[in-house]
Amino acid sequence: MWQGCSMNVADIDRAASTLPGVVHRTPALTCMRLNSAADATLFFKAEHLQKTGSFKARGARYAASLLNAAERDRGVVTHSSGNHGAALAWAAAEQGVAARVVMPENSLTNKIDAVRSYGAEIILCPPTLAARGERLEKVVADTGAVFIPPFDDERIIAGQGTAALELLEDVPDLDFIIVPVGGGGLLSGTILAADGRVPVFGAEPSWADDAWRSLKAGVIAEPIDPPRTVADGLRTGLGKLTWPIIRDGVEDILVVGDELIIAATRDLMAFGKWVVEPSGAVPLAALLANVDRFRGKRIGVILSGGNADVGSFFS
Amino acid sequence: MWQGCSMNVADIDRAASTLPGVVHRTPALTCMRLNSAADATLFFKAEHLQKTGSFKARGARYAASLLNAAERDRGVVTHSSGNHGAALAWAAAEQGVAARVVMPENSLTNKIDAVRSYGAEIILCPPTLAARGERLEKVVADTGAVFIPPFDDERIIAGQGTAALELLEDVPDLDFIIVPVGGGGLLSGTILAADGRVPVFGAEPSWADDAWRSLKAGVIAEPIDPPRTVADGLRTGLGKLTWPIIRDGVEDILVVGDELIIAATRDLMAFGKWVVEPSGAVPLAALLANVDRFRGKRIGVILSGGNADVGSFFS
Repeated sequence: MWQGCSMNVADIDRAASTLPGVVHRTPALTCMRLNSAADATLFFKAEHLQKTGSFKARGARYAASLLNAAERDRGVVTHSSGNHGAALAWAAAEQGVAARVVMPENSLTNKIDAVRSYGAEIILCPPTLAARGERLEKVVADTGAVFIPPFDDERIIAGQGTAALELLEDVPDLDFIIVPVGGGGLLSGTILAADGRVPVFGAEPSWADDAWRSLKAGVIAEPIDPPRTVADGLRTGLGKLTWPIIRDGVEDILVVGDELIIAATRDLMAFGKWVVEPSGAVPLAALLANVDRFRGKRIGVILSGGNADVGSFFS
Repeated sequence: MWQGCSMNVADIDRAASTLPGVVHRTPALTCMRLNSAADATLFFKAEHLQKTGSFKARGARYAASLLNAAERDRGVVTHSSGNHGAALAWAAAEQGVAARVVMPENSLTNKIDAVRSYGAEIILCPPTLAARGERLEKVVADTGAVFIPPFDDERIIAGQGTAALELLEDVPDLDFIIVPVGGGGLLSGTILAADGRVPVFGAEPSWADDAWRSLKAGVIAEPIDPPRTVADGLRTGLGKLTWPIIRDGVEDILVVGDELIIAATRDLMAFGKWVVEPSGAVPLAALLANVDRFRGKRIGVILSGGNADVGSFFS
């Protein structure tokens, strides 16, 4: 079914079998006020309460568990605006493996602090996708560290898909699932996990709308570089592995502006009492911008992370 | 045991028997980062996720359920800086009873909006405790409405105590429970619910430290009027019913300044991913200001409410 990709739901099941007791099985939360706002019944998969504060702990932990002894000795490296970096730093520390993380200089301070708190070495780079790649290659060449990509990796995709697998176990009768899309690890994993049982939507910021443009064009579109959306976790483009899964399996990509993303972040706090970072609020923002399309449906929403820049709220 | 008070744990049990399916049985949450900060094991009773966003729904709903037909016809009235007002407005609406709420002019906009959203009539008054009482008496005289006090009422105390009853069922082996104290409804109800099994602490802002002064003096101390702490839910003084229960049953009252209250509110958001209003963060602030005293203990913390002024975070 997934042309150009050998993965299927069995890969997600395999990853899921390794995670109990290792990452949290997060709850599916509900909120009447948000149901009223969307005129639909929403089930929020609470990955903001996940280890390291995002779903990224799933893929990173799964990938780290598959390292062999020689790879463990060399340590791991990745590039990340924050959540994958923190997740990999945490996962590596759990297994006694050294971690290095290349981060854009404009990463949120709280995300840099989180990566550091798990004991990883941080290498800052200019805030362009090109610079990330160059700096990463240099680290690999210099140190021999094993690159664990943020999304374009079968282990990562399989791990990220376990969130939707749990959601579908807890709420089997969903009409749709909607998740944020940046590099597409969560979206492609969710599509594989849903396995045709439930249509899956992606949601992305209009200031990082490369997934939507890719879907319209039928080929991977260039990301805006440097991207400027407040949804800092969604600034990357699609990958060679995630793209064909999304192209063949996604129901649609919804695009929404930063003003509505911020409003949805606020609504999640005011009504749900949940601290969700802007990237994680993008699906709700997209639902609230498309109420007619989703009216009366039962919709699974993955709240992908909670690492908002809380310090800025009190300054 | 409670001199000057005829209430005991049976009153809490009776209230608890009426609440299943009516208010949420909120979970006891944990957070490793906050455990590390406190160097203790904390169990947070999540009343920020309660109906109307605070524990006040418990007492208001219980009191409203006890109205007779004649009282229901006359409607209810109260005075409140917000959470009890919203709770009573909600509880009254659930039973088809009219509600009026006297609120200080300096109440948070989100709290005024919440009371209004449940259909209550709002009567604004100057921000002093004296003005609240006068305006309330006038409404009762003019309309015949039944006064449901915010805390100094046996029905309210019994309802509020049900939160601690649930917490002790879920986590029986606590060393201490700590709750915020304003008028003392939650604290006195918690003391009755604990029934001598677990020592109960109160925590209050240093800019509204009348409970601490009362305990030292042995008589009810005058509240600071008008009080100026950021913990807007804790600005009232103790009541004639709550005071003797607290005097005879509380382990101690801890006082903490606004700067640490704001820091604890931020920590609950950054680490727990929970939106808790400053009043609800006062117990954590007090614990973090007294780490040596509570080191290594298992402590129940009631997160009393989540109605923070979230709009201000994004302005």
